[in-house]
Amino acid sequence: MAKKRQDELGKLRAEIRNITLDIITKAHKRMKLSEQIGAIKGNLRIEIEDENVEQEVRRSVIELSHTLGIDPAFSGRLLNMLLMESIRLQQIQHKKIGNDPLIPTHLSVFMKAKELESSGKKIIHMEVGEPDYPPPKKIRKALVESYNKKQYHYTDSKGLLKLRQAIAKKVGHGIEHDEVIVTSGGRFAIFSAILSILRPGEEVISIEPSWPAYREFVDFAGGKIKTLGTTIENSWTPDTGQLEEMIGHHTKIIVLNYPNNPTGKILDKKDITRIVSLAQDNGLYVISDEVYSDYAFKGFTSLTHYEYDRSIVVSSFSKSCAMTGFRVGYGIADREVISKMARIQAIALTSVAEPMQYAALSAIDYSPAGNVKLIKERLDLISEKLSNMSLDFISPDGAMYVFPRLKGLVQNDAALVGKLLDLGVAVAPGSGFGQDYTRYIRISACQPKKMLERGLEVINSVLFIH
Amino acid sequence: MAKKRQDELGKLRAEIRNITLDIITKAHKRMKLSEQIGAIKGNLRIEIEDENVEQEVRRSVIELSHTLGIDPAFSGRLLNMLLMESIRLQQIQHKKIGNDPLIPTHLSVFMKAKELESSGKKIIHMEVGEPDYPPPKKIRKALVESYNKKQYHYTDSKGLLKLRQAIAKKVGHGIEHDEVIVTSGGRFAIFSAILSILRPGEEVISIEPSWPAYREFVDFAGGKIKTLGTTIENSWTPDTGQLEEMIGHHTKIIVLNYPNNPTGKILDKKDITRIVSLAQDNGLYVISDEVYSDYAFKGFTSLTHYEYDRSIVVSSFSKSCAMTGFRVGYGIADREVISKMARIQAIALTSVAEPMQYAALSAIDYSPAGNVKLIKERLDLISEKLSNMSLDFISPDGAMYVFPRLKGLVQNDAALVGKLLDLGVAVAPGSGFGQDYTRYIRISACQPKKMLERGLEVINSVLFIH
Repeated sequence: MAKKRQDELGKLRAEIRNITLDIITKAHKRMKLSEQIGAIKGNLRIEIEDENVEQEVRRSVIELSHTLGIDPAFSGRLLNMLLMESIRLQQIQHKKIGNDPLIPTHLSVFMKAKELESSGKKIIHMEVGEPDYPPPKKIRKALVESYNKKQYHYTDSKGLLKLRQAIAKKVGHGIEHDEVIVTSGGRFAIFSAILSILRPGEEVISIEPSWPAYREFVDFAGGKIKTLGTTIENSWTPDTGQLEEMIGHHTKIIVLNYPNNPTGKILDKKDITRIVSLAQDNGLYVISDEVYSDYAFKGFTSLTHYEYDRSIVVSSFSKSCAMTGFRVGYGIADREVISKMARIQAIALTSVAEPMQYAALSAIDYSPAGNVKLIKERLDLISEKLSNMSLDFISPDGAMYVFPRLKGLVQNDAALVGKLLDLGVAVAPGSGFGQDYTRYIRISACQPKKMLERGLEVINSVLFIH
Repeated sequence: MAKKRQDELGKLRAEIRNITLDIITKAHKRMKLSEQIGAIKGNLRIEIEDENVEQEVRRSVIELSHTLGIDPAFSGRLLNMLLMESIRLQQIQHKKIGNDPLIPTHLSVFMKAKELESSGKKIIHMEVGEPDYPPPKKIRKALVESYNKKQYHYTDSKGLLKLRQAIAKKVGHGIEHDEVIVTSGGRFAIFSAILSILRPGEEVISIEPSWPAYREFVDFAGGKIKTLGTTIENSWTPDTGQLEEMIGHHTKIIVLNYPNNPTGKILDKKDITRIVSLAQDNGLYVISDEVYSDYAFKGFTSLTHYEYDRSIVVSSFSKSCAMTGFRVGYGIADREVISKMARIQAIALTSVAEPMQYAALSAIDYSPAGNVKLIKERLDLISEKLSNMSLDFISPDGAMYVFPRLKGLVQNDAALVGKLLDLGVAVAPGSGFGQDYTRYIRISACQPKKMLERGLEVINSVLFIH
């Protein structure tokens, strides 16, 4: 009996090997076809990613999955992998890949600015969202105590129990400490959340313009990002009807970020409610990056308010408490997701530095009201100056940025950003927030008014020359 | 002309759609075959992951990729996706999915111990390599200064220039600062190095018993770990002939860790020379985890000595300076690898917390001689007690552990470790360091002698009952 089964096993294995090779051969043939298409497109000067054609293939695959009873999530992932390879190959044909200069982002400008500074140049930093005001005074004491009290050991990879309890209490909505993870910045919370949830080939919907990291996380996880663009004409409000249409079988996550970086937009409650309802109907996770929630100049509704079980709410001490360099953020989600995120943090870095966690704990009751007032005043100043230059922008509802559109002749944000950097003014290029925003720059309010004024004068002079 | 090209494009697109549907149909058939295999295996009680069968399929795929000129990274990813789906399906057949218990490791025991402590239980921590002695006194001052001097901002994701320069100078061998990256612990250095170098489907050779994280990093990168086992009979010396045989087409990295965790072994120089030469001949990277290099009780040759261009040497402030909870480590490699590692660090966490980097800088000239002497005395004490229990072990050449073999009847380290934890003694199970080491435990010398004596008495009593 066992012998017969062993034989059968051998036969099935041979069959599986053959079919595997067949799949890979077909995938290769598909790649060759892609190359040919790429070459023709290059000739015809057609954009490589052709959303309509892709949607048609996608529909056929879904139909086939239904007919054969294949899990559409599986076929969707497989299709995405094939499509991504296809796009890469077409880019090789276009000779676009290889030395593809990275799209400039606020971070690459910051790195460049730091480099210039280390060689003696003075820079006005209007490119990063890094408060210039100090963190809470209590932290000084917390740092000394962390030494005296021997608080410099590995901690639970979810973070110190006391800190998690304090965060849960602060956030409210009945959140408990085991629904909280302390991470190395809000960044690692989103990074680990996406890696916890997303399987290769699955999709994430992000609303643009957006912080470029979301795309990086999804790329890192082998997923596919789909972007819902918003426009200055619509006051950066996403079209929820369009969002609904974008949701497919292999969509897994929607990322929200309000108050928004870079636009300063805060979504109306009815729009958030609609998005949560769409997520619920389609079994999607919603990651809500709320690191700017304290900097809200109108009513802001946190995703925690909805008590939606597939939500991951991310925040941080970086902006509210001016603690960027301490690298302490947190995520709030259901226990299972928190455990997966903790496992990723354990693998990558064991735990957040304990003295930094105690520093965060000492800042838990800190009121950011003064900081918020300061930023609001600066944003008003920036807005006034930009109005004087007749630049278009939407007055920010929150966060710490203004995102103006460049005027008429200026087409290339990268060139402008480079020019400004030469003149000692660092700003973030719009293209870092989405390819449709090359005619925008992001100006951060994290410098004293005097510096902002000087920086804006330089911007004015450069725009004028253009 | 354009019309003709448009027609051609239409034809190619139809062809691509058909081939896509064909691939997915085949993938579905493959899944069905998997299900059948799963059912038979369930009957025959065969383990689901069958290393040999998988290797054979992998070889066929690589051969095919060479023949057809397919990028092996692409076929590797595709194969991995098919295999993962296949294993998942077989697990569904076995009804095993969901509650797969993780293999216990020193870290999981530590987490459990922390949990017990937070509910009031006293634990003797002999499970983790976390010094119980304090970090350098200078750090107290550095922490206060980090607040006073506003050293709490984002830094270059490679780390502070001053710290990188100081590390380069300390390491010597002509290393320059741009060959150094400061990471969130030595852990993140290895994590990011493996993710920088390894493409899905490629292989890493690790020498066991070993720190379990290497395997986790490789799994995370979608790679495959191959282990070269060592034995107590051979004094934990790896067989370099066997290593040579293991190197194949898709081998990319060899990981070394001397002084070794968990055995305390230091490799003879001739063995390291031989391994470096094998790596050179085969174009392999060598990652040398040297976090215990200060704790060497006989001559230790760092990989930096070889000035091998495909080497990544990793160290940390955690063990030498008793700074585990500060999470500051570093990697040394060529500039290109450093840049890739920095990019991963930038994506995951921006940069290491700046106050922690200044704390590390203040400790750069710290002499660990006192700590090393202390650990050596404790290891001697542990060795003496284990000898009295007639347990087999190799006297450690370095590091901070003894790795004894359990006696006769004791087969299951996990049960023993659980029992000891109930009695307030945490030790690391051998199986966390490799599946062949279920009859070992790792005892760490990071507790005062009195505690070690008490812990060893408990171990003795439990082993005696067994």
